Amino acid sequence: MGAGHTRFGALPDGPRTLLRTAVDGAFSSVEKGAERSAVGEAFLATLGFGGWQIGNAAALLAEEAGSAGAATTRVENACASGGFALRAGVRAVERGDAELVLVAGLEKMTDVTSARRRYWLGVSGDTEWERLAGLTFAGVYGLIASEYVHRHPDGREALAEVASKNHENGSRNPNAHFQKRVSRDEVLRAPRVADPLGLYDCCPVSDGAAALLIAPADQARRYTDTPIFVEGLGAASDRLAVQERPELTRFDASRRAGDRAFQDAGLDRSRVNFLEVHDCFTIAELLALEDLGFAEPGGAVDLTLSGATRLTGRLPVNPDGGLKSKGHPIGATGVSQVYEIFLQLRAAAGARQIPGAEVALAHNVGGAGATAAVSIFSRG
Amino acid sequence: MGAGHTRFGALPDGPRTLLRTAVDGAFSSVEKGAERSAVGEAFLATLGFGGWQIGNAAALLAEEAGSAGAATTRVENACASGGFALRAGVRAVERGDAELVLVAGLEKMTDVTSARRRYWLGVSGDTEWERLAGLTFAGVYGLIASEYVHRHPDGREALAEVASKNHENGSRNPNAHFQKRVSRDEVLRAPRVADPLGLYDCCPVSDGAAALLIAPADQARRYTDTPIFVEGLGAASDRLAVQERPELTRFDASRRAGDRAFQDAGLDRSRVNFLEVHDCFTIAELLALEDLGFAEPGGAVDLTLSGATRLTGRLPVNPDGGLKSKGHPIGATGVSQVYEIFLQLRAAAGARQIPGAEVALAHNVGGAGATAAVSIFSRG
Repeated sequence: MGAGHTRFGALPDGPRTLLRTAVDGAFSSVEKGAERSAVGEAFLATLGFGGWQIGNAAALLAEEAGSAGAATTRVENACASGGFALRAGVRAVERGDAELVLVAGLEKMTDVTSARRRYWLGVSGDTEWERLAGLTFAGVYGLIASEYVHRHPDGREALAEVASKNHENGSRNPNAHFQKRVSRDEVLRAPRVADPLGLYDCCPVSDGAAALLIAPADQARRYTDTPIFVEGLGAASDRLAVQERPELTRFDASRRAGDRAFQDAGLDRSRVNFLEVHDCFTIAELLALEDLGFAEPGGAVDLTLSGATRLTGRLPVNPDGGLKSKGHPIGATGVSQVYEIFLQLRAAAGARQIPGAEVALAHNVGGAGATAAVSIFSRG
Repeated sequence: MGAGHTRFGALPDGPRTLLRTAVDGAFSSVEKGAERSAVGEAFLATLGFGGWQIGNAAALLAEEAGSAGAATTRVENACASGGFALRAGVRAVERGDAELVLVAGLEKMTDVTSARRRYWLGVSGDTEWERLAGLTFAGVYGLIASEYVHRHPDGREALAEVASKNHENGSRNPNAHFQKRVSRDEVLRAPRVADPLGLYDCCPVSDGAAALLIAPADQARRYTDTPIFVEGLGAASDRLAVQERPELTRFDASRRAGDRAFQDAGLDRSRVNFLEVHDCFTIAELLALEDLGFAEPGGAVDLTLSGATRLTGRLPVNPDGGLKSKGHPIGATGVSQVYEIFLQLRAAAGARQIPGAEVALAHNVGGAGATAAVSIFSRG
C-alpha cells in the first residue's frame, strides 16, 4: 500500500489540485516505483456536490492521477465515504480486476457559504425527524453527550480530555488543520455549541484530500520493502433517524462493523496497538471506544481519563489529531485515517510515532451512526 | 438473481416508496423465498442530491428493504451509477461477505424545477469547457450526431429508426414511461432540440426505481429454479470533457469496458442474443453498437436500418424500450437494464419476449462517455 495526503485546512487549492497532490504523494510513498498506467481501477470518496459544482467526479480522479481509462467509481456515504471507498477498493484488488487500485478521498468545503454548507451537510442526517425540525449534527451529538454525561458524571471531564489529547496530537502533525494545544480547562470554558458540547468539542470545516494505492498482498513487495496489509473489513448500517434506535449512547452500526472486521481479520482486539476513530465530536470518540469493544458502556470515561489513549498510553487513539484537530474534509476523512496508519506502521510518523506499532484499526462513521466502516491493518 | 421494478414516469410516489416497491418486487421474483435478514450488504445507485433533499441515502435502502444493519453503500457515477453499483454488488457476493446482496437504483426527478434539474444534471458533464459555456447534454450529443451524420449520410434515417424501434418496444412494456408508437416520419418531423436531434431523439425525465437480489452462483438454486448468472464485468473511464478526446464519434470508455467484460466472461460476441444499451439520445445507441464491437465504425447505420436490432431481428437492442421510451430515472437505469435481461432470460418478458434468449449484455454510460460499465449475463 502507498499513501499520500494534503495539508488539511482552509486551503486556496481547488479540488483537482488537492486530488493530484494526494495521489502524487501516494505514488512517491512506494520507493520501488509504480506505473500510473498500472492503476486499472480507482474509487473516489466525496460528498462533493454541495460545493465544487462538478459531477461525475470519479472520472476526474483517473484524469488527475494520470491513469486514463481506469474504471472509476464515486462512493458517497456521507462522512463514512472514505471507509466505504477503501472497502470497495480492497474488493477490486482481491477480485484481480487490476494490478493496482487507487482509493482517494476529497472535500473542498470552504468555498461555499455557510448557509449552503449547512443544507449540504445537514441532509446526511435524518431529514423528516431531525433536519426539518432544526436539529443539526452538533445538536444530535449534543443530545447524545447530554445523556452520556447524565449517566456517567465524569463524562464531561473525559470529553475535555479527548479534545485536549487530540489537539496535543494534532500539534505534532504538520498536515493538521489545528496545530495548537488546548488544555482541558480551556475546553471546558469554551463557548457552548450544543450543550454540553463546546467549541473545542467539535471538529472544524476543512478542505483536503488523501489517497491510497493498493496492490494484491502477494505483489506488495514489488512496490515497497515496507508494505502495509489490510487484514480485515467490516461495515454496517443503522436507522438514519436517531429517534428510531433503541439506545442513544451507542451506535449499533459501529458495533456490527467492528465485530465483522475482527472476524474477517481473524484477530483478537488485544492485538491492536492503536486506533483511528471517528471523533467528529468528542463524545463520538468515547462511543467508538465502547462500540468497538475496547471498553464497556461507560468505561471509555476511565480509559480516557487514565491517559491510556494518549500517544504514550497503552492504546493511543487518533495519534494524528483525529477529526477534532487534524480536520474533517468529509470524503477525505476515512482515507486520511488509513494514511496515518500507513505512516505509523512504517515507523514514519515522526514526532507522533507510536513505538513498535504492528496492528491498527480505522473506524469511519456516516451521519450520526447511520453507516460505519471498520478496517484493520498490519505491517505484515 | 431476483429483480424488481417500479413503473417509470412522472410518478406521485416519493423516493422511499419507489425503493420499497422495487425491493419488494425483487423478493417476490424468487419463488422459493429469501429472508430479508439474509441481505448482508446493499448498494444504492442514485444521483439523488439535487432532488429529494435526503443524503446518506444508502442507509435508507437497508431501512426500506427490511434488512436493518446491512452494510450499505451509495454509488454515484452520474447516469452509469446503476452499472457501477451492480459491479460493486457482484464483488461483495464473490468475496463471500454476505449471503445475499441487494443492488437498487433510484431517481425522483419530477419534483424539482427544471432550472434546478438542469444544473443538477449538467454538472455530470464537463464544467470548465462545456457546462459553463452553455453546452447541455443534448448539445453535446447533438454535436456528436452532427459529425456522425456528416460522415454517414444515412445516419439521420438510422437515428429515426432507433427512436421508432424503441418506442415500438416500449409500447409492449407496461413499466415504460412512454407506451406509444412513433413512426420514423414523426421522429424526423418533430421539433428540433439540438440539431440534428429532435424531440423523439431524446430520453425523458423520469421517476423510478429498480432492484436486484444477488446470491453466490452456487447458492442460486436455493432461491429459484430459473437463476440468471453474471458472466462478466467490465468498466472504464475517459476524459470528462469531450473536447479532450481524440475522436468525437466513439466512446473509448465503452470500448474498453466492453472488451474487459467479454474477457472477464470468456465469451465471444457471437454468443450474445440481445443488448440493453445506453440510448439517452438515439445517437448513443448507434455509438454503443460500434463501441461494443457489434458493428464497424459507421456500420451501425446499416445494422439498424436492416431491422436486425428490432425485437424480431437477429440482435434485438433495448427490448424494454431503452432510455428513450422506457424512461431514464438516472440512478435506476443501469439496474433497470438488468431487470429486463432477468425477465428475458427467464422467458418472462410477455409481449416483448425474445425467443430462446440465453446470453445478454447491459451497457451503462455516465456523462457523455466519461464512465462506462458493461455486464454480461446468461441463464446458465
